Amino acid sequence: MILRPLALIAALGLPVAAQAANRECAQSPGKVIELCVFVDQGQAFYQVSRRGVPVLAPSTLGLGFAGEPRARYTALGNARRAAVDTQWEQPWGEQRLIRDNHNELAVTLTGDTPLNSSVGVTFRLFDDGIGFRYDYGAIPAGQAVSVTADHSQFRTVGAYQAWWYEALGQERDEYLYTQTDARRITLAETPLTMKGENGLYLSFHEAALVDFPSMLLAGDGAGTLSARPMPWPDGVLARKTGPFTTPWRTVLIGESAGALADSRIELNLNEPSRIADISWFKPTKYVGVWWEMHLKKTTWGSGPTHGANTANVERYMDFAAKYGFGGVLVEGWNKGWDGEWTEHGDQFSFTEPYPDFDIRAITAYGKAKGVELIGHHETGGAVVNYAAQLEDAMKLYQDVGVSVVKTGYVKHSGDILDENGGKQWFAGQYMVRHHLHAVEVAAAHRIAIDAHEPVKDTGLRRTWPNMISREGARGQEFNAWGTPTNPPEHTVILPFTRMLAGPMDYTPGIFDITHGKAEVTERVQSTLATQLALYVVLYSPVQMAADLPENYEARPDAFQFIRDVPTDWETSRTLAGEIGDYIVVARQPRGGKDWFLGALTDEEARTLGQPLTFLTPGKRYEAQIYRDGPDADYRTNPTALVTERRIVTSKDVLTFNLAPGGGTAIRFKLLN
Amino acid sequence: MILRPLALIAALGLPVAAQAANRECAQSPGKVIELCVFVDQGQAFYQVSRRGVPVLAPSTLGLGFAGEPRARYTALGNARRAAVDTQWEQPWGEQRLIRDNHNELAVTLTGDTPLNSSVGVTFRLFDDGIGFRYDYGAIPAGQAVSVTADHSQFRTVGAYQAWWYEALGQERDEYLYTQTDARRITLAETPLTMKGENGLYLSFHEAALVDFPSMLLAGDGAGTLSARPMPWPDGVLARKTGPFTTPWRTVLIGESAGALADSRIELNLNEPSRIADISWFKPTKYVGVWWEMHLKKTTWGSGPTHGANTANVERYMDFAAKYGFGGVLVEGWNKGWDGEWTEHGDQFSFTEPYPDFDIRAITAYGKAKGVELIGHHETGGAVVNYAAQLEDAMKLYQDVGVSVVKTGYVKHSGDILDENGGKQWFAGQYMVRHHLHAVEVAAAHRIAIDAHEPVKDTGLRRTWPNMISREGARGQEFNAWGTPTNPPEHTVILPFTRMLAGPMDYTPGIFDITHGKAEVTERVQSTLATQLALYVVLYSPVQMAADLPENYEARPDAFQFIRDVPTDWETSRTLAGEIGDYIVVARQPRGGKDWFLGALTDEEARTLGQPLTFLTPGKRYEAQIYRDGPDADYRTNPTALVTERRIVTSKDVLTFNLAPGGGTAIRFKLLN
Repeated sequence: MILRPLALIAALGLPVAAQAANRECAQSPGKVIELCVFVDQGQAFYQVSRRGVPVLAPSTLGLGFAGEPRARYTALGNARRAAVDTQWEQPWGEQRLIRDNHNELAVTLTGDTPLNSSVGVTFRLFDDGIGFRYDYGAIPAGQAVSVTADHSQFRTVGAYQAWWYEALGQERDEYLYTQTDARRITLAETPLTMKGENGLYLSFHEAALVDFPSMLLAGDGAGTLSARPMPWPDGVLARKTGPFTTPWRTVLIGESAGALADSRIELNLNEPSRIADISWFKPTKYVGVWWEMHLKKTTWGSGPTHGANTANVERYMDFAAKYGFGGVLVEGWNKGWDGEWTEHGDQFSFTEPYPDFDIRAITAYGKAKGVELIGHHETGGAVVNYAAQLEDAMKLYQDVGVSVVKTGYVKHSGDILDENGGKQWFAGQYMVRHHLHAVEVAAAHRIAIDAHEPVKDTGLRRTWPNMISREGARGQEFNAWGTPTNPPEHTVILPFTRMLAGPMDYTPGIFDITHGKAEVTERVQSTLATQLALYVVLYSPVQMAADLPENYEARPDAFQFIRDVPTDWETSRTLAGEIGDYIVVARQPRGGKDWFLGALTDEEARTLGQPLTFLTPGKRYEAQIYRDGPDADYRTNPTALVTERRIVTSKDVLTFNLAPGGGTAIRFKLLN
Repeated sequence: MILRPLALIAALGLPVAAQAANRECAQSPGKVIELCVFVDQGQAFYQVSRRGVPVLAPSTLGLGFAGEPRARYTALGNARRAAVDTQWEQPWGEQRLIRDNHNELAVTLTGDTPLNSSVGVTFRLFDDGIGFRYDYGAIPAGQAVSVTADHSQFRTVGAYQAWWYEALGQERDEYLYTQTDARRITLAETPLTMKGENGLYLSFHEAALVDFPSMLLAGDGAGTLSARPMPWPDGVLARKTGPFTTPWRTVLIGESAGALADSRIELNLNEPSRIADISWFKPTKYVGVWWEMHLKKTTWGSGPTHGANTANVERYMDFAAKYGFGGVLVEGWNKGWDGEWTEHGDQFSFTEPYPDFDIRAITAYGKAKGVELIGHHETGGAVVNYAAQLEDAMKLYQDVGVSVVKTGYVKHSGDILDENGGKQWFAGQYMVRHHLHAVEVAAAHRIAIDAHEPVKDTGLRRTWPNMISREGARGQEFNAWGTPTNPPEHTVILPFTRMLAGPMDYTPGIFDITHGKAEVTERVQSTLATQLALYVVLYSPVQMAADLPENYEARPDAFQFIRDVPTDWETSRTLAGEIGDYIVVARQPRGGKDWFLGALTDEEARTLGQPLTFLTPGKRYEAQIYRDGPDADYRTNPTALVTERRIVTSKDVLTFNLAPGGGTAIRFKLLN
């Protein structure tokens, strides 16, 4: 036997008993969260508690690399601490001023393989959760490494219920959530939200996902979740060049579901903006040549039923201008939509409109009315084709005055092919790179991106504020053709799961609830009031009014709320809620003194008493209320809507009588 | 919130405290091994001890399926027990009669997901180890299911050293082994062999790998190994149709390294032969037009340097006939070898010889001399191309009297593409199916397969006795061009690791040790005596004499051993050995009264005293000894060989003075 260098080190590297010097602890600013990191028996661990209640049992840390045996961490050292309490301003968002109040603990793990010889781990402790990331700063500059394992664990303590879906394989994130004992999780997407018998709510996610694969979480049947980054086709998790840091892995910890929704950890763990001037992007509402295609009234493809024809688009522009919408989305405008486009996305041209779509006439027409074209780039998952045209595609849109582009990566077979024909997961490192590259090219052309079938949001809008919104969940489109369509609980699960990641372009506002379908599971499963409340509950800086113009003009009573509701906010608060049951959200418009409120329930009728303490004391407001009619029910009478006006103050308590599948939307208009 | 059926079951499925009825135990026939299986906290576990010493701590069981939350096992039931003590005969092999002495414990796990509602687990306990497999017999016939997780664990207790290599990605198994603390295992191929501070030797592997992905083992840094079946390109581990059973997962447990090598669990856990008449396959030695290509004297490709020309092949046939070899392997005989063939294996034709290779003339020429052509099918990893020609290819060989075909799957880029262009791992379910299909087509044509770049052996030769040998490790070919070539320890690691799986076509017998290379790490790193001993140590029913004819004729003293050594055995015993240090193996020829012995050391000189108690008492033998010369050293004087004859009996003790990198080969010829 030859003892090779690595084996020699292993033979000498006897387990080191945990010593005081091998353990470092820190608390969050309000002493709510405590975290310790330590080395024992060759492994590095962290553990977390909240006000003395164990949240995470000792959980392993670190990455593994190709060509190296698993590291044995022999010491913990070089602890550095920092306390931060600052605030910063979002150029647009659900909250203008964001407080960043955390204590930082950074340590170095000393390991016995070359790439692990000195691993930095930085923890940030907030009162509502933690984040940590690895700093492989000791890997020499330019050295290429392959990450083949992520040993990051989250070992929960006690019994939890989880809201999750199986993140199987390579498909996009468009599933219904299921609720189970958290020990039954197989492989779950994040944010992964759980509710404990101990009264705690947890959500696991990551922040600042840049040039690294998106992380899934695998359950072990006993409450431990392990990081599972989406691999390259050859099984390597990440290809990096030294030195590098990883994304932040985050755990939100609160005593209510709303505490998770109102956490700003996600944004705080991202870097400040790299875009000097984002003033060209204005949050807006938009309509579009879109729902009519989902209803099969017109088509994406060319021919006599082609939806994206100049006359039709100008009709939408007239409507938009009349009712104050800033944009008109048009899908199916460019060559490539004919035939099974999800299987040959490489036929898409992003610079050649169909002949009946006169892009310059349309944009000039809109400009005269103060309405922008919302651009659209459906790639069919053919990212190589899209990347090759990206510069020209963005330049065209910039030339004609488009400032927002919705992108799409629909691929029914689930296969996204790279330059080498390799099948890429939808959010592996390759696609993470692609999406950010698209955003950067777009930024150079003063274009904002609203990505559908995206990599999940990890707060990158702070750094790239033209990365404005995304899909990444089952949106309203499933209410056109889903089997089944979204059940009422879906939109009271999203605020505590998917929405923790960031804005979602859910496209609310379908007024023709039944759209000709007899079965409730084949059409929108909500009341009309719910469709209004969604504009407040599901935040996005671009909000679609998804239905057809004629359906809005048929219900001017309800439509008034959509006309009034803004898409940019001074502040936002989740006033009440339980995951999958109900939610009440209030938001104050940016630069305004009004407030808006949205309340939703699941399939059960529910009466909620809501104190209005968020209103400015001493002020009078006209509450313009859009609520379910007395006999409303999403199954039998979805469009029964009552509008009423009441004078209220911060001392009042409003009672919401939510119908099954129902909701309430309110504008609180400041009177004096 | 809607409680869907699964969630409802979860809510009711409270953890069940372990009860007597939820625990079943069994012992091996000699009461050496004890195993218990139980259900606790919703999970199913097994644990193993040997004479009261814990070997495996409670380790989880079960598979996971797409579309199902993780099972909660709520009860253990229907325990069935059996005791087996029988023996069966191998048609050829390292041991004619195989004793199968085990106790069986089969239980049913009751779970709360549809596919896990009733999971059978069958354990077989031998005195030298265990095997277990799952029986998903309750899945309805014809129901397609996707296995997405394998929860099988092996939780070792205490400190072990392991001999392993990193099973990264999709490459074949041709690596040097490294020795480390077993906790440093990242992802390892099996057989995975370990030596404990407690004196126990363990080896983890599987048996009867049919229509299921090959299993790798992932370490967790703390001694737990978890099954990691090689996935399909989309991440699914196995696509099965109900009902089905899995391969056996095996653990060999012994008090010596040799005990692992002499275990027959692997064969015993395979099914009896499905080939009624295998008499047409005769174990044999062979030479070949092969090493001269590795030395770049001739080429696989066509042209003036083409090795596979009729005249050259007939020269090898003359040599084979003269010295008693049964076959001549010829590589490079068929169209497709020109250019970068590993990247376009789809250009291979398996029915069209190059014009200078007259296959019918050659085989007729050989037949007249009693020498067979050993066929060769190099696929370049293009399995679709190979599968399409398989029937015709085997028919051609059958027509010309070929009964052994060496196959190859060399693919330097590591990508094996399936019919859909998907990149398949070299031993995922797709390739497991492919290799067995090739063996079955071959069997129909009375052809035996010696697969290179194969799926690892799991004892399938019992069921398909035309699956005779394989590569699946770093063979002698690396001594032609490896960087570095195989160090001396390699061949004293293989018997306790790779060889536990089954026969290996290592191709020993290189006499021109240096083959013109000055650096020891660029040529064969052994003495000449070692090259002889390998014929005994590394079992294969087809053994190559890999060197050039002229090199054998230059050393008739050494060559005599190769001429004498058989390739089929009555019995085999590992007399001594330590992993990576040394080994002594004795084998008795099938149908003969002689014995053969091979001894090897690593890079250290070693003196071993070997009692000859395996010889028949009262009989006299002429020991024809081939040993290192007194000043032999693999670095400085590799070809110093002493041959001597001594009369010995079973009461004698032979002392082997093994040079660095040296060995000893002995034929014990019965005298009376």
